[in-house]
Amino acid sequence: MSYSSDPRAARSREAILTAARELLIGEGPGAITHQRVAQQAGVGRATVYRHWTRPEDLLLDVMSGADLPHFKDPDGPLRPWLHRNLRAMADELAEPAVAAVALTLMQAAIWDDQIAERRDASTQNVADRLGAAVSAAMEQGELDTTADAREITAMLIGPIVYRTAMQRGLVSDELIARLINGIGTWHD
Amino acid sequence: MSYSSDPRAARSREAILTAARELLIGEGPGAITHQRVAQQAGVGRATVYRHWTRPEDLLLDVMSGADLPHFKDPDGPLRPWLHRNLRAMADELAEPAVAAVALTLMQAAIWDDQIAERRDASTQNVADRLGAAVSAAMEQGELDTTADAREITAMLIGPIVYRTAMQRGLVSDELIARLINGIGTWHD
Repeated sequence: MSYSSDPRAARSREAILTAARELLIGEGPGAITHQRVAQQAGVGRATVYRHWTRPEDLLLDVMSGADLPHFKDPDGPLRPWLHRNLRAMADELAEPAVAAVALTLMQAAIWDDQIAERRDASTQNVADRLGAAVSAAMEQGELDTTADAREITAMLIGPIVYRTAMQRGLVSDELIARLINGIGTWHD
Repeated sequence: MSYSSDPRAARSREAILTAARELLIGEGPGAITHQRVAQQAGVGRATVYRHWTRPEDLLLDVMSGADLPHFKDPDGPLRPWLHRNLRAMADELAEPAVAAVALTLMQAAIWDDQIAERRDASTQNVADRLGAAVSAAMEQGELDTTADAREITAMLIGPIVYRTAMQRGLVSDELIARLINGIGTWHD
């Protein structure tokens, strides 16, 4: 349904997306309910329903548009920063709703070019952030590796996605430490 | 329902599975309807109904049809055996059709308990095979690791799935070697 010809509807749609994004970032995907989003956006619940009948669809729109906070702003030595960020990502993916949205996004990208573009931008974005952090650590003498940024991303994030989405298992801190060890030779 | 005693029914079943696979690869799971599949297979719609009452079951059979040969029959030292099997899996996932089926299965499992059971059986099967091979290598003194079979599976397969399905990138032999190195301490 397109609301582009109705400026009021377009405004409420934007307000809802912004509110949902704030809730997602602040509290996680469990907070994306019609009631919470309506409250946060300052609109009626019926207005949220009119734009998105199912909260999952709203979550999908928010997630594929949101600039997720993972691996942002490298801070201090690489190893603990990686561990914190991977821990946060694993904890989020452990929530069925987030795993569902991540898999839906991955799968929808196969037949939908627009979603594929979002997926590509998002994976590139993560790889760029990780690459910058790894480069800084290499300059500091903390790490040596010949793997490139995208390979390192696959080595760190791939097992966490497989573990949570395919095995439906918990990601232990030991597993995260192993993944971090595996990306190169550490001198810390 | 078994049609094994009726060669005509077995032939139509095969034709329908082939047609459904083509539709899945070309257009995605939405194309798996009785009407489209019957048309593509050159059989009547009633014939499709006779084999699969619900299109979801046909989709499931198409997606999980193959008993994948990966990690079967450990043979010789662990490292080259792992490398061969991971190479074969990466080459298969590089084909968009295979990646599409794998992701569809992963995603469908979220809302469908039957598919979730097959996914669980399949991931457990791979972990059991890898676990047996790793145990044998540890007895031979080839490898030391405290990671369990399922974690090792996630560490080896996760990055390959992420690399092919999310990054749409090639899996180099160097990356495979890195993943294998990362699962423990090698004494080979």
